[in-house]
Amino acid sequence: MAERATTRASLTGGSAQPVTDGAPRAIVAGATGFAGALAAHLLWRNPGFQLVAVTGRSEVGRRLDDLYPRYRVPLQIEALDLEAIGAIDAAVVAYPHAAAAPTVGALRERGVRVVDLSADFRLSSLATYERWYGAHPRPDLLAQAVYGLTELHRERIATADLVANPGCYPTASLLGLAPLARAGLIADVVIDAKQGISGAGRTFDETTHQSMAGENILPYKVAEHRHTPEIEEQLAPLRAAGGARDEVAVLFQAHLVPLDQGELVDCYVTPTREVRDDELLELYVDAYRREPSVEVVAAPPGTREVQETNFCRVFAKADPHSGKVIVLSAIDNLWKGTSSQAVQNLNVMFDLPELEGLT
Amino acid sequence: MAERATTRASLTGGSAQPVTDGAPRAIVAGATGFAGALAAHLLWRNPGFQLVAVTGRSEVGRRLDDLYPRYRVPLQIEALDLEAIGAIDAAVVAYPHAAAAPTVGALRERGVRVVDLSADFRLSSLATYERWYGAHPRPDLLAQAVYGLTELHRERIATADLVANPGCYPTASLLGLAPLARAGLIADVVIDAKQGISGAGRTFDETTHQSMAGENILPYKVAEHRHTPEIEEQLAPLRAAGGARDEVAVLFQAHLVPLDQGELVDCYVTPTREVRDDELLELYVDAYRREPSVEVVAAPPGTREVQETNFCRVFAKADPHSGKVIVLSAIDNLWKGTSSQAVQNLNVMFDLPELEGLT
Amino acid sequence: MAERATTRASLTGGSAQPVTDGAPRAIVAGATGFAGALAAHLLWRNPGFQLVAVTGRSEVGRRLDDLYPRYRVPLQIEALDLEAIGAIDAAVVAYPHAAAAPTVGALRERGVRVVDLSADFRLSSLATYERWYGAHPRPDLLAQAVYGLTELHRERIATADLVANPGCYPTASLLGLAPLARAGLIADVVIDAKQGISGAGRTFDETTHQSMAGENILPYKVAEHRHTPEIEEQLAPLRAAGGARDEVAVLFQAHLVPLDQGELVDCYVTPTREVRDDELLELYVDAYRREPSVEVVAAPPGTREVQETNFCRVFAKADPHSGKVIVLSAIDNLWKGTSSQAVQNLNVMFDLPELEGLT
Amino acid sequence: MAERATTRASLTGGSAQPVTDGAPRAIVAGATGFAGALAAHLLWRNPGFQLVAVTGRSEVGRRLDDLYPRYRVPLQIEALDLEAIGAIDAAVVAYPHAAAAPTVGALRERGVRVVDLSADFRLSSLATYERWYGAHPRPDLLAQAVYGLTELHRERIATADLVANPGCYPTASLLGLAPLARAGLIADVVIDAKQGISGAGRTFDETTHQSMAGENILPYKVAEHRHTPEIEEQLAPLRAAGGARDEVAVLFQAHLVPLDQGELVDCYVTPTREVRDDELLELYVDAYRREPSVEVVAAPPGTREVQETNFCRVFAKADPHSGKVIVLSAIDNLWKGTSSQAVQNLNVMFDLPELEGLT
Repeated sequence: MAERATTRASLTGGSAQPVTDGAPRAIVAGATGFAGALAAHLLWRNPGFQLVAVTGRSEVGRRLDDLYPRYRVPLQIEALDLEAIGAIDAAVVAYPHAAAAPTVGALRERGVRVVDLSADFRLSSLATYERWYGAHPRPDLLAQAVYGLTELHRERIATADLVANPGCYPTASLLGLAPLARAGLIADVVIDAKQGISGAGRTFDETTHQSMAGENILPYKVAEHRHTPEIEEQLAPLRAAGGARDEVAVLFQAHLVPLDQGELVDCYVTPTREVRDDELLELYVDAYRREPSVEVVAAPPGTREVQETNFCRVFAKADPHSGKVIVLSAIDNLWKGTSSQAVQNLNVMFDLPELEGLT
Repeated sequence: MAERATTRASLTGGSAQPVTDGAPRAIVAGATGFAGALAAHLLWRNPGFQLVAVTGRSEVGRRLDDLYPRYRVPLQIEALDLEAIGAIDAAVVAYPHAAAAPTVGALRERGVRVVDLSADFRLSSLATYERWYGAHPRPDLLAQAVYGLTELHRERIATADLVANPGCYPTASLLGLAPLARAGLIADVVIDAKQGISGAGRTFDETTHQSMAGENILPYKVAEHRHTPEIEEQLAPLRAAGGARDEVAVLFQAHLVPLDQGELVDCYVTPTREVRDDELLELYVDAYRREPSVEVVAAPPGTREVQETNFCRVFAKADPHSGKVIVLSAIDNLWKGTSSQAVQNLNVMFDLPELEGLT
Repeated sequence: MAERATTRASLTGGSAQPVTDGAPRAIVAGATGFAGALAAHLLWRNPGFQLVAVTGRSEVGRRLDDLYPRYRVPLQIEALDLEAIGAIDAAVVAYPHAAAAPTVGALRERGVRVVDLSADFRLSSLATYERWYGAHPRPDLLAQAVYGLTELHRERIATADLVANPGCYPTASLLGLAPLARAGLIADVVIDAKQGISGAGRTFDETTHQSMAGENILPYKVAEHRHTPEIEEQLAPLRAAGGARDEVAVLFQAHLVPLDQGELVDCYVTPTREVRDDELLELYVDAYRREPSVEVVAAPPGTREVQETNFCRVFAKADPHSGKVIVLSAIDNLWKGTSSQAVQNLNVMFDLPELEGLT
Repeated sequence: MAERATTRASLTGGSAQPVTDGAPRAIVAGATGFAGALAAHLLWRNPGFQLVAVTGRSEVGRRLDDLYPRYRVPLQIEALDLEAIGAIDAAVVAYPHAAAAPTVGALRERGVRVVDLSADFRLSSLATYERWYGAHPRPDLLAQAVYGLTELHRERIATADLVANPGCYPTASLLGLAPLARAGLIADVVIDAKQGISGAGRTFDETTHQSMAGENILPYKVAEHRHTPEIEEQLAPLRAAGGARDEVAVLFQAHLVPLDQGELVDCYVTPTREVRDDELLELYVDAYRREPSVEVVAAPPGTREVQETNFCRVFAKADPHSGKVIVLSAIDNLWKGTSSQAVQNLNVMFDLPELEGLT
């Protein structure tokens, strides 16, 4: 007779993993957090990969579909033991900053191709990393890392062994600013970002308690946001390609607002010359005409339009009164901002259709 | 040069409809409401059908992906003109009660197989219908309608030409109660239902305004809920099969709570004899072992576990103190409660994999 | 020059406490939780009391208006030291169950009149307490405790030295059921309760994380709710006064829904005889005509109507179809359900206007 | 016997209006919208005024506590008939732009002192008004109107007969920027504003439907916001007093986020010279030391800290990296942003304690 379990996993039904023969074997290291769990969910339903293990530094022995019933991944969370797991081809590492690098190193030494969700390999400048995050555990790997904003670096990602998945704020900001930067139009920029509470992750504190986060708009990390150097470092070559000879010091300000998944960045750009709306529209449509995950829109995008998708919606408009240009960029912070972009990168790395398992 | 449009549809990208050769041609009549729009979205991504038109009684000429940017169905909303649309095989009708029946009739007269989302064909008793909804526009069609709770009537649905899709409350209630009813265990039942605001539909009033619906728990239609006869009519043969000779008068009470999509019903059952938890678990696991859309769980289900899925999660537990049995049943009111169940039924009717396009 | 502080308390303005000469000196023990903090806020603005200290088992040294900026109580949180605090007349104790009783005892031994928010003194039966909560630290005090549902026990509260403030679920349930019970009309009752996330308190876990609590309806503690005996114990004498000779076994089921403060209980009563709506209305209006905090309403009450008030809104209706009576009772779980009722009781105990500081 | 009403007003209890002898007689014209209803609520509980009538252009005959049960104002909504109402001293006019001016005129001609919540008298420049709102119905009254940002114009408000209550965005923006402007420190400013859904008012459409507004961040009116000239016009004399000889063209961008009441503006200021945090703190504390409704804080303020209060919380910080200054200003858009500021102004006009009825 069936025994009453205490798990939230289903006692009936159950979804088998659809896997193509000979698909690369993948793991998610750090599957207990929001980002890792979603990456596991997306890999589980992606026939191009065989998800063979999910690991965690806590919750070992618990099933992932008990911890995250929504995702229905019926694997048991293991402690990370690369010997025991056996041969694998691909890994998503979803550890906190500084904790990720040693695991990424161990995986690389076994020849595993890695997408790392932490900040550990996003910055090419070691000095900049250490100013914001402290000592780097594996600076030797920095040179081989490719910045994983798919739309900017698709070709290099295809052959990369280590992809540093961008932060969600830089993802939205850079997709919004790239066309202007390449056209040499950015003299100065202020970025005001708003994000749902999932952006705080599986953290249990005043920031995420519904009675404190609900009915609130909460600015945080004023004048000290770690994503500034990441945006600046990626913006520099784009601006240079557009003819800029100077550097731009970005002001980035973030806020939590009471929803789950969604992120909007407003970029207030002082342009290098006057631009009109029709020129902006042409610039953006040209830039993204062949991009399957970027939607240029002609009305201000709400984040709900991209929730639980890999899409980024971009809208640009001139403000003749102030002489500035406003660029709005909307993503789902957990999807395109984190985990679906990680899978998008894995698809590119393993020569699969770029959006396999994501639509 | 590109012209700035006023629509919220994307100017770049665009998803082609994946269609199997020779797939049945389908329409959604009434695609401007929540239920019809979601049905269109689900059919658009279902390769087993070719969605050839979406119609509306308002918003004609507007694109559906402007009205519902989330759904990315790039069809223009048309007035319903069966001549103009040409040959079609299948239709989902998403009109209000009483407005649906004439259109269903017109479609049936052209040989179109229909899933109707309204209440017009859910009740087999004309008298009961007229007590709650007024005169029936097409009582002649009642006899051919099959009640579309897939798990209860799959075989009859497979050959039906007219399927009456259940209400969301009856869907959750009946999946929760069916095993107990068939086992002859229900002497009396009180149903307390909670639902997200999407249950009120695309209605713009005090019920749905975020400043009134938010931070509120709102009971409505006390002692006068139209879903009572629908539940009772479906429960009767199940109870009879379980040996019951009497009728049960259901008390059903509904509430709106501040979320979007999600529905929980609590069924408080006075059993005909004492039952223990282990017997209940065996009863439910047995009942649903082969059902792909029903998940029997061993912990109280939250509605978030089934959001944007065709799953119903069911949990049953005895309360020795009061002698009653508590059955909890959780669905997404717009998915399994309405539109994904409609597509599940269409898949069954056209001999496609039952969950095609739904997972 | 002003130094930049790290506190969320304001650097300008600041509200002095309005205190009547000779007002009783009060403390709140356990002011770091939701209930204690709100009690401190309500006492601070109540001119009938002088709030002389707020204590906590954590956060000592932090100002309460830093921990709870909304409440603007500029007192520093202290460790509880009755010697150091000096002479006090009144205390609200907001500790967890079992932790409260020893502190209540220490306060009583100094002659302080106490309102205790825990369950420690709510049940007159020691056996019942120990079945649900384990060993009682101070059973000797049980006899002097008065159950603090103001509307039921106002006269005894006026002279009590120890008031056991009711749970929020019993508060709403009993105010809803009392008129029926006194009229001898309750044969059986099922209570389905819904509550906002603040009901989980300042607890940081999956239950309260906005990304898990939001977009969710979560049933909990199925068939094992501690409030059942509290409701039954209070209902018994009311039913006896109405002529009942038997006991009623209450089925109580609770749910968390995604809002902050608000609670609705639906009581499904099997009446001892048929009752009609007009009789119900007369019964309820008669019962509560002179009660300043109970509003009998003629439409189903939403919880938003009572948010941040000491009101309970009650609505009763017969369901001729099932033969049952539905009673809806709405309160703010933190106000009338906890802290404002505590202050209401203190006002009664110290012969102040009952709603001083609460309107 | 009591008759079952259909109203949501209470059948028991009922709050009498506390009125000081000889208190000015006041009305609210346009009490059916969010702003007017809250103004009525605040005047009802303010002993300094006698609220003698609430009027509406719709809902005539309905009681205000049925339309807004939370506010418990038991007056019947009347059509505005100044003859019938009789002698009154004060009025709050809560009509849409352009509709307000004629009624304000009629009231002024009877000698009534008016606080107008519309934009009709906020701009001193008729040309600017007409560019944004069309023809002005009563330009003759512009000269007597005083801009009702209490903290900026308290003395003139005290003797004014017509006060133009500021928009909520200008209120937060100007309180945030005034100290910098007066110190001659603003060279350029971008304002990014976020607001709860109540900011859209009692409007029933896609903007306010919970299933569309929830889980969304929605930018609107990009590069075309009407509040820009209001902010610029008020900022000009402050900047001039600080020595500025030029004009500043403000970029203002607004967003709706899914909460009810709350507004945060982020002001990104390019300063005329380098400023440090300690200088900023001193500047702000000095500016607002004696302001009872402005709280200078040393941590980024969340809007929840000011919900349902007349407080504005202000925080300023330098960003050495970009060279800019960030000023955050948080209010409740319906309270300090609209209705409680209206009552604050009425209190000043009638020589009552400034926060009477507001704390």
